[in-house]
Amino acid sequence: MPRRKWNTPAAFAQAILASDTAAVSQAITQLESTRADHQEAAQALLALLLPHTGQSLRIGITGTPGVGKSTFIEAFGLHLIQCGHRVAVVAVDPSSEKSGGSILGDKTRMERLSQHPHAFIRPTPAGKNLGGVAHATREATLVLEAAGYDRILIETVGVGQSEAVVRTLVDAFVLLVQPGGGDDLQGIKRGILELADILVVTKNDGQLKKAAAAALADYSHARKLVAPHYSGWRVPTLAVSSLEETGFDTLAAALNELEAYLRSSDRWDAQRAEQRRIWFDQLIEAGLKRWFAARAGAKQQQARSAVSSGHQTPYAAAKALLDELLPDHDTTK
Amino acid sequence: MPRRKWNTPAAFAQAILASDTAAVSQAITQLESTRADHQEAAQALLALLLPHTGQSLRIGITGTPGVGKSTFIEAFGLHLIQCGHRVAVVAVDPSSEKSGGSILGDKTRMERLSQHPHAFIRPTPAGKNLGGVAHATREATLVLEAAGYDRILIETVGVGQSEAVVRTLVDAFVLLVQPGGGDDLQGIKRGILELADILVVTKNDGQLKKAAAAALADYSHARKLVAPHYSGWRVPTLAVSSLEETGFDTLAAALNELEAYLRSSDRWDAQRAEQRRIWFDQLIEAGLKRWFAARAGAKQQQARSAVSSGHQTPYAAAKALLDELLPDHDTTK
Repeated sequence: MPRRKWNTPAAFAQAILASDTAAVSQAITQLESTRADHQEAAQALLALLLPHTGQSLRIGITGTPGVGKSTFIEAFGLHLIQCGHRVAVVAVDPSSEKSGGSILGDKTRMERLSQHPHAFIRPTPAGKNLGGVAHATREATLVLEAAGYDRILIETVGVGQSEAVVRTLVDAFVLLVQPGGGDDLQGIKRGILELADILVVTKNDGQLKKAAAAALADYSHARKLVAPHYSGWRVPTLAVSSLEETGFDTLAAALNELEAYLRSSDRWDAQRAEQRRIWFDQLIEAGLKRWFAARAGAKQQQARSAVSSGHQTPYAAAKALLDELLPDHDTTK
Repeated sequence: MPRRKWNTPAAFAQAILASDTAAVSQAITQLESTRADHQEAAQALLALLLPHTGQSLRIGITGTPGVGKSTFIEAFGLHLIQCGHRVAVVAVDPSSEKSGGSILGDKTRMERLSQHPHAFIRPTPAGKNLGGVAHATREATLVLEAAGYDRILIETVGVGQSEAVVRTLVDAFVLLVQPGGGDDLQGIKRGILELADILVVTKNDGQLKKAAAAALADYSHARKLVAPHYSGWRVPTLAVSSLEETGFDTLAAALNELEAYLRSSDRWDAQRAEQRRIWFDQLIEAGLKRWFAARAGAKQQQARSAVSSGHQTPYAAAKALLDELLPDHDTTK
C-alpha cells in the first residue's frame, strides 16, 4: 500500500478523526518509529488527537496456550461489530522480538475480522521489549480511540509479566480458560487469576460441554477466594463457544455492565487520569534506568556479579556505583 | 540496657558469631541508623559476617487480620525450638511508620517466645517506607544468620505490596488463613495466594474444627488452580491449632521438606545468589529514583499533574523532564 501524505498535522488528524484506515496505520507506524523526525511529527499529531481519546472500553484478553484465543477474538470481535461496535485489536507480545514474528502478524488467522470495515487489526511492533511494546500499545490505543473504535481488544500472551503491565492500561481484563480437569488447570500463571474482571471458559461445545461446565464451577469457586481488581465488582464467570458463537451475548452484556459500573460516579475519568499517571511514572522509570545503564556500561554487570558471588554486600556495591555515577549523589543512606 | 563496646570490628563480629544477644541487637540498631559513622561501622561489620551467612531457612509468614498470626508465631516458634532450632522473628510492616508502633513492638504479645534463650525477636524499624524496611530486614537477617539462628521467621502484615517484596527475600512463604465460609475468604489480598509455598488453616480447634476442615478443602482445591512459586514444589495445605499446638509437626516437616528440596541440586546457592542480585537491583532502582526526585523537586509533581489532567501526553512530559534533568540524556526515543 503506497503511503499517502497529509499536508499538515491538522489534516492528518482530521483524516484519523474521519476513520481513514490508511491514516490510522500510518500514524501508528510513525509512533513506533525510532527516527527523530517521525517521533516529532507523531507526537505533534498525538497532541492534536488527545482531546478525542479516552472514551473506548479497553479490554485486555489473556489465556493459557491452546485456549483458542485467536479464534475467540475473531468470533467475538465480529459479534461486537454486529452489536454496533467498532472493534480494534492490538497485541502485547514482547516474545515476538525473539520469534521475529508476532501473534497477530499472521493476519490470516483472523481473516474474517481483519477484512471487516468496522475492524482494525494491528500486529505487535517488532524489536521492542515489554516496556516498549506497552508504550507503543498505549499510543496506538489513543490513535484508535480518536478514529472512533469503541472496543479495543488488547491481546496478551500468557507469559507472566505482560499481564500485570496490560492490567495498568485496560479497563476490563478478560481471562480465557479451557475445559479440563485437575492438573490441567495449573497452566494459569501466577497472579493472573486475580487480575481478571471477567472469567471465560472457552470451547463450551461438542464433547467438551461437560468438561466446560465442570471448569465453570471450579473457576467460579476459585475466583471467590481472591479479592477482585475493582473492590465493588463481582467477577462473572461464563462459558462460550467460538465455534457455535454461544455465550457471546452474556459476555458482551458483562462488558457493558462493567463499563456502566466504571462510568458511574466519576470512576471513569479518575481511572483515565490514573492510567496516564502510571504511564508517565513508567516512562520516567524506564528512562532513568536506560540512562543509568548507558552511563554505567560494564560496571553495573561487574558489580552485580560481585554481589551474586557474595564478594560484596548489595548495599556496598550499590552505594559505590551510585556515588560514582550520579552527580551530587548524597552519600548518606 | 547499657551499650557495651567492642574494641574492634573483629571483636564485634566474634561476639555475634558467639551468639551474644547484646551484640546482635547493637549490630542491627547500627545498621538501621542513618548516622554516617554508624553506617560505616555497620557495613564493615557486615563484610566480616558475610561468609557466615546464608544458611538459615528464611520463612515469610503472612495472613489476613484476625487469623491469629502473633499467637501462631509464638506457639510455632517454641515448637521449632523444641525441635532443636534457634528461632529469630523479624517483621516487615511499613505501616508502623504511621501507627508509630510496630506489630512486634509490643513484645508482651510473644512473652514466652521472647524470653526463651534460643529465640530472638526484633521489631520493625520505625520511620521507614517499604523499601527501607525490606532493606533493614535483609541486613538484620544476615546478622541473625551469622549469630546461628537457623529458622528466621519474617512476619508481614497482609497489606498487599509487602508480600511481593518479602517473597524476594525468603525461601519459604507460609500463608495463614482462617476458617470461615464463602465471602469471608475474600479477605486474601490479590496475588498472595500464588506466593504461598505452604498454606496453613489456623484455629483448627473447638467449635471451629468443622469450619477449618471445610476451609482446608476449599483452599486445597483453589491452590491447585494456580502455578506454584517453585515449579517442582507441590504446595501442601494443612491445619493447625496454636491453642492446642496441633499440626505443628506436619508444618515443621513440610518446612524441612522444602528446605531439602531447595538444598538439592545447587538450587540453594543459586537462590541465595539470585536474592542478593535482586536486592542489589532494588537498591540501585531506589537510589536512582530518590536521586531523581531530589533533583526534580516540584517539577516532577507538576508534570504528573499536567499528565493526569490530560494537558500533556505522558511521553512528552516524561521526555521533557528527563531531557532537562539528566546530564547527556539521549533525546532519541
